[in-house]
Amino acid sequence: MTLTRRYRFSASHRLHAPSLAASENARIYGKCNNPYGHGHDYVLEVSVRGPLDEATGRIVDLDSLDGLVRAEVLDAFDHRNLNLDAPGFGDVVPTTENLAIEIRRRLATAWDRAFPAGAPELDRIRIQETKRNIFELA
Amino acid sequence: MTLTRRYRFSASHRLHAPSLAASENARIYGKCNNPYGHGHDYVLEVSVRGPLDEATGRIVDLDSLDGLVRAEVLDAFDHRNLNLDAPGFGDVVPTTENLAIEIRRRLATAWDRAFPAGAPELDRIRIQETKRNIFELA
Amino acid sequence: MTLTRRYRFSASHRLHAPSLAASENARIYGKCNNPYGHGHDYVLEVSVRGPLDEATGRIVDLDSLDGLVRAEVLDAFDHRNLNLDAPGFGDVVPTTENLAIEIRRRLATAWDRAFPAGAPELDRIRIQETKRNIFELA
Amino acid sequence: MTLTRRYRFSASHRLHAPSLAASENARIYGKCNNPYGHGHDYVLEVSVRGPLDEATGRIVDLDSLDGLVRAEVLDAFDHRNLNLDAPGFGDVVPTTENLAIEIRRRLATAWDRAFPAGAPELDRIRIQETKRNIFELA
Amino acid sequence: MTLTRRYRFSASHRLHAPSLAASENARIYGKCNNPYGHGHDYVLEVSVRGPLDEATGRIVDLDSLDGLVRAEVLDAFDHRNLNLDAPGFGDVVPTTENLAIEIRRRLATAWDRAFPAGAPELDRIRIQETKRNIFELA
Amino acid sequence: MTLTRRYRFSASHRLHAPSLAASENARIYGKCNNPYGHGHDYVLEVSVRGPLDEATGRIVDLDSLDGLVRAEVLDAFDHRNLNLDAPGFGDVVPTTENLAIEIRRRLATAWDRAFPAGAPELDRIRIQETKRNIFELA
Repeated sequence: MTLTRRYRFSASHRLHAPSLAASENARIYGKCNNPYGHGHDYVLEVSVRGPLDEATGRIVDLDSLDGLVRAEVLDAFDHRNLNLDAPGFGDVVPTTENLAIEIRRRLATAWDRAFPAGAPELDRIRIQETKRNIFELA
Repeated sequence: MTLTRRYRFSASHRLHAPSLAASENARIYGKCNNPYGHGHDYVLEVSVRGPLDEATGRIVDLDSLDGLVRAEVLDAFDHRNLNLDAPGFGDVVPTTENLAIEIRRRLATAWDRAFPAGAPELDRIRIQETKRNIFELA
Repeated sequence: MTLTRRYRFSASHRLHAPSLAASENARIYGKCNNPYGHGHDYVLEVSVRGPLDEATGRIVDLDSLDGLVRAEVLDAFDHRNLNLDAPGFGDVVPTTENLAIEIRRRLATAWDRAFPAGAPELDRIRIQETKRNIFELA
Repeated sequence: MTLTRRYRFSASHRLHAPSLAASENARIYGKCNNPYGHGHDYVLEVSVRGPLDEATGRIVDLDSLDGLVRAEVLDAFDHRNLNLDAPGFGDVVPTTENLAIEIRRRLATAWDRAFPAGAPELDRIRIQETKRNIFELA
Repeated sequence: MTLTRRYRFSASHRLHAPSLAASENARIYGKCNNPYGHGHDYVLEVSVRGPLDEATGRIVDLDSLDGLVRAEVLDAFDHRNLNLDAPGFGDVVPTTENLAIEIRRRLATAWDRAFPAGAPELDRIRIQETKRNIFELA
Repeated sequence: MTLTRRYRFSASHRLHAPSLAASENARIYGKCNNPYGHGHDYVLEVSVRGPLDEATGRIVDLDSLDGLVRAEVLDAFDHRNLNLDAPGFGDVVPTTENLAIEIRRRLATAWDRAFPAGAPELDRIRIQETKRNIFELA
């Protein structure tokens, strides 16, 4: 069984690849290349998978999961500028693809400390950038 | 191909594990351990998988599926108290994990009578407890 | 200008009018009269109206509004049984109409203490019981 | 990683299988067999899967994907009558199952021209016919 | 207090004004003028206003309201073609403006028979044609 | 009758009142005062009110309305930084209250040029900043 838990955070970003010419950046990213940035209300879904604890009837302690996501994701990215004010995006373009990779990496790195008993496992994450664009990373 | 069909039902529950001490129950379930219970509007998604009937262009007869879900799930749980008034939760804590297991078990048990031709198959169920918690069971 | 702020809470209730016969209760409330109760995820919208504070560009301090709603509504009704475990429903049937009246009364009573400067005003409240039933009280 | 991109289109259809008797059609399709048709606002999700382009931080060029979906799906089906005015449904009943098959076939056929570099791949499509019926085709 | 209750129906239509030239129709209605029609999943909200019945704690009997809306709106328009198969649109263009007027007229005409006690009153209706277009008629 | 039409745009902002001390800004705006800004996906609803054109069955020409909103709102604010990159916010804090006032002012100023016949009128605007905060200005 999987549990998917939903979180929200708001951030700004500018899509600009330093390795590419200005005209290439404008062509590839369009309005998202505007120099002063823009922002989104991201919806993050974290899916965990694990056996049922017979006594509690649960597969995950929600306080532990929420604490992990708060420490590793919300504190790092909520109400921040991904280019200037958040970890992981020095030379990396803050596309939602790269944001998904960074969030998954941060959760995986801290996972064992949050769930020392070895369960549940991180199944996948899903980020909705806008109503039209959703990224999923297993 | 899969078809996912969505149903809604409202129920109340109290999360309390009889095998655990009162203080443990309070710590684990927090507000959900309040003695008089609370409730949710559950959203149930039932996904079925099967070959296309060439003549009708359908993979499932919706009346049969709706009748099965009504008899096995909605009649059993809609507008009920899961602890006191619904099948399957005598000593079992009515977490949404256990509710998902019970719903899947009931659908699987009655499946062959509803679909005697051997198709479609039950692919998975998904229950949204609140906007933030979603459970999926394949 | 009005600001509408959205809150959520989960509660259970049973619709049963003590002044009416059992058969009348069954006819009027249908499944909602089930003796052990059921529940909902209520969505509460609180709309406030006021002049703009020129310095801050805001019509209400959100922390004050959130604190008021938490103290008067969420602490009283969230994760509770409206019949047995919440203020205001001794002999009163906990329909969402009566819940709206009780919530509005509680907010109005505490309003001046939360907003001693006389602004903003409480414009109206709106409660969504389910996706199909929404109550509004000016 | 997958990206899911969401599109909308409105169309009308009548469900009627020419190979079946009128009474069978009435029994199987119910109101959907009404002779003059009815309509829906379909939501189409196209999921693509591919490696990350290191320079751009993207797995797909959105303009290319949007152009492909516009040419192969939206221009063919949006604001049309599936029975009379759209490709692929001569003798085929325009159920959403068959619509999903036709949309997937059209996307797959044109895919290599839109993405000559061999990436990304078409992962799956998903069509929501109404809030209650969702079809997924890998 | 008002109660807003939500209903859904699916219908098809073609926007074409018989009093205007073909080129005018094409210019004004664009894709909606396609000769074979298209369709929508309409969301209808009916808002009623009235005093609280002290005994029941309700402002309207939902069965009566549902019965009225079923008879006057859903039976007339659900799974129909507004141009060919529904009352009220002989020479009238089935825009959602005109559909709102016709629905309000039908509800008002039958209102007193459904609510002979003089309460509740019909406050307003609201029709969502698509996620982007919503019509309200007091 | 009113028509409400929905638009979306994404922007970033930082809430900081130049007339107030740093500590006051931190207290009032919390995370929204973060120096590098953050962002939102704003949902704008523009409601217009007017008589029905008998020939077309419409109260507004949607192309004219969309053109007006595009020119005055979307081109000005979509994918921009409200503090640095958008009109109207030199010394003005870009709260959504002030954004609503600026959007309404821009629409009102250009209204007569877009609708020279004197109808429809601008009824009100509504901006959803996040799922929890909605501003309405008549």
